[in-house]
Amino acid sequence: MTGAASLPGVLVAAGHWDPKPWAAPFRADPERPVFTWPNLPDPALVHYVLAWAPPAEAFLGLPNLKAIFSLGAGVDHILGKAALPDVPVVRVVDPDLTMRMTEWVVLQVLMHHRRQLAYLRQQAAHRWNEITQPVARDVRVGLMGLGELGQASAKVLLSLGFDVAGWSRTPKTLPGVACFSGVDGMEPFLARTDILVVLLPATPATRGILNKSLLAKLPRDGALGGAVLINAGRGALQVEADILEALDTGALIGASLDVFEKEPLPASSPLWSRPEVVITPHVAATSDASVLAEGIHRAILDFEAGRPLKNIVDPKQGY
Amino acid sequence: MTGAASLPGVLVAAGHWDPKPWAAPFRADPERPVFTWPNLPDPALVHYVLAWAPPAEAFLGLPNLKAIFSLGAGVDHILGKAALPDVPVVRVVDPDLTMRMTEWVVLQVLMHHRRQLAYLRQQAAHRWNEITQPVARDVRVGLMGLGELGQASAKVLLSLGFDVAGWSRTPKTLPGVACFSGVDGMEPFLARTDILVVLLPATPATRGILNKSLLAKLPRDGALGGAVLINAGRGALQVEADILEALDTGALIGASLDVFEKEPLPASSPLWSRPEVVITPHVAATSDASVLAEGIHRAILDFEAGRPLKNIVDPKQGY
Repeated sequence: MTGAASLPGVLVAAGHWDPKPWAAPFRADPERPVFTWPNLPDPALVHYVLAWAPPAEAFLGLPNLKAIFSLGAGVDHILGKAALPDVPVVRVVDPDLTMRMTEWVVLQVLMHHRRQLAYLRQQAAHRWNEITQPVARDVRVGLMGLGELGQASAKVLLSLGFDVAGWSRTPKTLPGVACFSGVDGMEPFLARTDILVVLLPATPATRGILNKSLLAKLPRDGALGGAVLINAGRGALQVEADILEALDTGALIGASLDVFEKEPLPASSPLWSRPEVVITPHVAATSDASVLAEGIHRAILDFEAGRPLKNIVDPKQGY
Repeated sequence: MTGAASLPGVLVAAGHWDPKPWAAPFRADPERPVFTWPNLPDPALVHYVLAWAPPAEAFLGLPNLKAIFSLGAGVDHILGKAALPDVPVVRVVDPDLTMRMTEWVVLQVLMHHRRQLAYLRQQAAHRWNEITQPVARDVRVGLMGLGELGQASAKVLLSLGFDVAGWSRTPKTLPGVACFSGVDGMEPFLARTDILVVLLPATPATRGILNKSLLAKLPRDGALGGAVLINAGRGALQVEADILEALDTGALIGASLDVFEKEPLPASSPLWSRPEVVITPHVAATSDASVLAEGIHRAILDFEAGRPLKNIVDPKQGY
């Protein structure tokens, strides 16, 4: 850097991700100091941290910190830190990320609805055989979590003719979606859900929510002949031992999981080998880092122009 | 049957399908004679034939025949018959059938777009590894055939963000879809198509259209790194030897096929074992026979009430 920096500085603490694309839009501005953790010669220059699963120390000793920007939609990787500074935490709300998640959810719902795994097994055996399946309007999809991601998935699933309901912590109203909320809404919501799509954030209230007790409340007599779990929220939501047991007992007839208690999913996990389970390596909403970084860059320019920050997390709710 | 039948009779010639659900709505009417090929004691009573891949003789010697109803969207299995009587041939246009086809098309497009086959292979190896993929707006889907089915698929693919174009024999205009038509429109349409979705009818003009020459016109430098063929139209459209060669040479990087030159697809076909190909046994738009039969029953009641038949096929165009 030559001369005195005249813009607030940025620290990128991208965990095991490549920091370069996140730093790029800021580096394009010669007056903006940009640091990559742990290389931080002058902590007083840092006004913003861009963070993905950062070490707790990344937030310490930054006297001029104004805001922390999560590099993903979830913020549990930030809120979990001890000694989180008292500054706004901003999550990514990006159309690309939402579209990716919608693609993944729709793909997984259709894979189970259309028995694609069974057809692939028949294909491997060179076997030509029709498998009966219901019409979409007889299949009840239940979205757990009705934020940006849940709403976007609901729209496409409705256009495909599915019978769509949703559950959220606080009451919501969505056109065409049977909406349930709160503790009281959970049981009736589960009782009418053949395909449970989970898009909840990981918070103290949702940790381990996908357990034996919840899975037992899904119906076994639906049009698909049983219930399917699709989780693209967070691995901390799920109790994998309970999911495996539910697959054994018939409480679940299938699952698609993108997130896991421990990531990468250990090679020894029995989930990998279940023929009725689709495993993807936390890629459901993987977005182009450079696209998301430009969104954060724009948000910071807006903030510096005097406009309020959007998409600030409520640390009490955890999202 | 007791007493004189007072309604025009129906002959069900359902090929290798179970005729019962097709006959059911007509049998519910005690005054309607209903026959199942080849049991036809009184051919003069037959005013309507409900046909799926019927033997040529099924249409002969029916002096009072008024119309032939196809049991599916395609009518090539009827028009191909020698000595087809000069009566209207009606195809099924059913919301259920359209929804099923849309599900299958969207599922297959997403399978290739999201690299689901590659992820399933990684899963089989217990391997956690992200595979790069483009955003939907950079993926050009081309729908060949813009009838009921193509239009319905286009809508959902647009809502998922894909860059959608369409080709039809005669010019059409669809909101959000780049429309090409006729012989002159084919090359520019193919040149901008990463995922080719074929929903054409089988006619003399379309027989073998999915051949080496056409596949060579698909781009190899698109966002997916090559072209994908998705055919749910008719097997007669495709030259399977050319598709296999295209997969070998890289003219295609993947395919989803629901229809085949010969059905069932022979167990000896190399298509079954291609890791980048999805095979389904002509089930893309399989609909509930009883639902479709009720639609045909309603069409016949309308016709008998003096209203004109809808969805009549143009035998010159073949659809």
